[in-house]
Amino acid sequence: MQTRATLLAHCRDTLGAMRREGRYREFAHLEKLAGRFPTYRWHAPQGVREVTVWSSNDYLGMGNHPAVLEAATAAIGTHGAGAGGTRNISGTSPLHAALEAELAALHGKSGALLFGSGYIANQAAISAVLEALPGFIVFSDAKNHASMIAGMRGAKDAKRVIWAHNDLGDLEAKLAAAPAGAPKLIAFESVYSMDGDIAPIGAICDLADRYGAMTYLDEVHAVGLYGATGGGISERDGVAERVDLIEGTLAKGFGVLGGYVAGDGELVDFIRSVAGGLIFTTALPPAVAGAALASVRTLKQDPARREKLAERAAALKSALDAAGLPRIAGPSHIVPVFVGEAELCRQVARRLLEEHGLYATPINYPTVPRGTERLRLCATPFHTDAMIAELIGALRAVLPRGAMQQAAE
Amino acid sequence: MQTRATLLAHCRDTLGAMRREGRYREFAHLEKLAGRFPTYRWHAPQGVREVTVWSSNDYLGMGNHPAVLEAATAAIGTHGAGAGGTRNISGTSPLHAALEAELAALHGKSGALLFGSGYIANQAAISAVLEALPGFIVFSDAKNHASMIAGMRGAKDAKRVIWAHNDLGDLEAKLAAAPAGAPKLIAFESVYSMDGDIAPIGAICDLADRYGAMTYLDEVHAVGLYGATGGGISERDGVAERVDLIEGTLAKGFGVLGGYVAGDGELVDFIRSVAGGLIFTTALPPAVAGAALASVRTLKQDPARREKLAERAAALKSALDAAGLPRIAGPSHIVPVFVGEAELCRQVARRLLEEHGLYATPINYPTVPRGTERLRLCATPFHTDAMIAELIGALRAVLPRGAMQQAAE
Repeated sequence: MQTRATLLAHCRDTLGAMRREGRYREFAHLEKLAGRFPTYRWHAPQGVREVTVWSSNDYLGMGNHPAVLEAATAAIGTHGAGAGGTRNISGTSPLHAALEAELAALHGKSGALLFGSGYIANQAAISAVLEALPGFIVFSDAKNHASMIAGMRGAKDAKRVIWAHNDLGDLEAKLAAAPAGAPKLIAFESVYSMDGDIAPIGAICDLADRYGAMTYLDEVHAVGLYGATGGGISERDGVAERVDLIEGTLAKGFGVLGGYVAGDGELVDFIRSVAGGLIFTTALPPAVAGAALASVRTLKQDPARREKLAERAAALKSALDAAGLPRIAGPSHIVPVFVGEAELCRQVARRLLEEHGLYATPINYPTVPRGTERLRLCATPFHTDAMIAELIGALRAVLPRGAMQQAAE
Repeated sequence: MQTRATLLAHCRDTLGAMRREGRYREFAHLEKLAGRFPTYRWHAPQGVREVTVWSSNDYLGMGNHPAVLEAATAAIGTHGAGAGGTRNISGTSPLHAALEAELAALHGKSGALLFGSGYIANQAAISAVLEALPGFIVFSDAKNHASMIAGMRGAKDAKRVIWAHNDLGDLEAKLAAAPAGAPKLIAFESVYSMDGDIAPIGAICDLADRYGAMTYLDEVHAVGLYGATGGGISERDGVAERVDLIEGTLAKGFGVLGGYVAGDGELVDFIRSVAGGLIFTTALPPAVAGAALASVRTLKQDPARREKLAERAAALKSALDAAGLPRIAGPSHIVPVFVGEAELCRQVARRLLEEHGLYATPINYPTVPRGTERLRLCATPFHTDAMIAELIGALRAVLPRGAMQQAAE
């Protein structure tokens, strides 16, 4: 077989099918403007224009906070651009160590460990835990993120049991049905990215206690945003100490880059010592660690920013409801608007951008199931009432009546 | 079973065994000093002192190049700290697009795609290719990096055939023994990180042509360093156009952070469209993309820096040989000094650091096989003759006679 020709034909076919189904992704070229967030410059083939971005995961605008920018700039001047090595090969700076200590403290844990991204943190940490003991069974919420699933699949001998999303009864039934002598891990998220709903962490920990299971909680859409000091939903609910491993990101609420896990110091040290995704990769640049450290410390003392986020999310939801627009209901800052079809979703997003100067990402398969395509909106503390009004007007103009009725049914 | 107690006991046991075997890794806290590379500040429990680092992968010192620092600082001021989203969710800036175009051009390819790290690039791209066609067989060099192996393992249905390191005869025998009708990928590196030897790329491409296989080449220890414009060994050998996918890093020779693959535009677009390690992760910060872009462009026009690296590596090798120190021979800039035992290796590195102010990472299992533990040295363009002389004196003082004789045998 001439592999090259066969593979290239397969690539063309796959890309063609994606285009026909309306789920071929074109990355819009969006230039972030520090100090003017959420206004970006959109570089389109036909020219450059300013747009309002409604789909940033820089939920609190910390990527533009003066203290964060100052820390990043100072660290570049002092330490240069890159780390120059893995954590073990000259890549651990005092900034990395300070950031890990800060993150451990944020979650009330005795250890924390940085990774290049939240994706890698989940993949590496979950694999490391599941590979540690023979016969591990991982109980995985049906809506867990792809990176968590990658971690479970990476542990070849672990058994994966999927429980219905946020369904305590189903989780308990599955825990009860598993062998009592098997090691067990319950893996779930706090805020689910695409629906914006929130897990009952305490009740899940109750079940974990009852069945001798450990808990692994992904808080990437919550750290910085919830809890008195930004420790996430587990802090808000007062249950952080009951969760064995809390995973978070520095790239969303904290506005920079990188992921981490926090937990018992010896468990974290074990993960540090065995996880390929940590050992074999260059450390985050000192400037990234420094910027993230400034962000975590700043947010710890800035509950007003969290309150503003909640207030803006509520304002966006009220405005959508008042206009009869098809919102997927949920208690968090994530506000999905239902469309339900890939090509339509793409078209709606394109018209919002081209005709109204508003950027909202069309979310389609594999990120969400087919038939549940949506626009995923987030109002940050920097989205004004005027911006919300502008968005509502544009959505009414571009969302077809059919989609709105379907959602209402 | 109480999973927590069982797992924590396992962690304690594993860490204890690592300590006893001398392969427990403690990350030295090393503060990079821009403008003074390779001098770092070592933050030890007993205080802070300046040391010379001999184990940085910032091979050319580009992490401290004024043009790179200027680009990073400018991008932070203009665009802020983080990208704020995945590539698809508002995270693609014009800097990302420009960097991908530059990397494609560097390797003479029609497409290139950024990832958060070289580890993720290998893992995601190799998995995407191997999952594209049923019955794929991947022929993997025995010394391939952990991230490449992770990519192969990620494609559950692909068959992995390991060929003896850099052994064309063994590769051909294994290609010939495989079914003619199966799609085939030969995966290998150019410069091998731990031994510093170099693959015969052209001859491997000859075999690929003969057996209808595609080629995947990891150039992470070569990009920026070799070839007329820094395109790696494939450029130096004039065979880049024969390699299907070239994978590289922005974190070593280019001194920043991130990884990439370059190849046929449609193949790269396919990987972009299906790879979980790309879709589900935040884009690199605009400042990282900007700094890397400046680095790639600067190095393209700076052959003198590459020549200086080669000259410094030769000087280090000559000095080691003249002193009768046990060097593992190789043609690249990577200069391993043989020790052969984990605890000894750790002790030698500790004494170099504590008694002589020289940092060299002890390399042990799983990075290299047990019994081949080593110090891995790199002389950058900034390591002076005086620094080399100081290193030789220190190595003579701390390397036990036994290890030196064993290596000579």
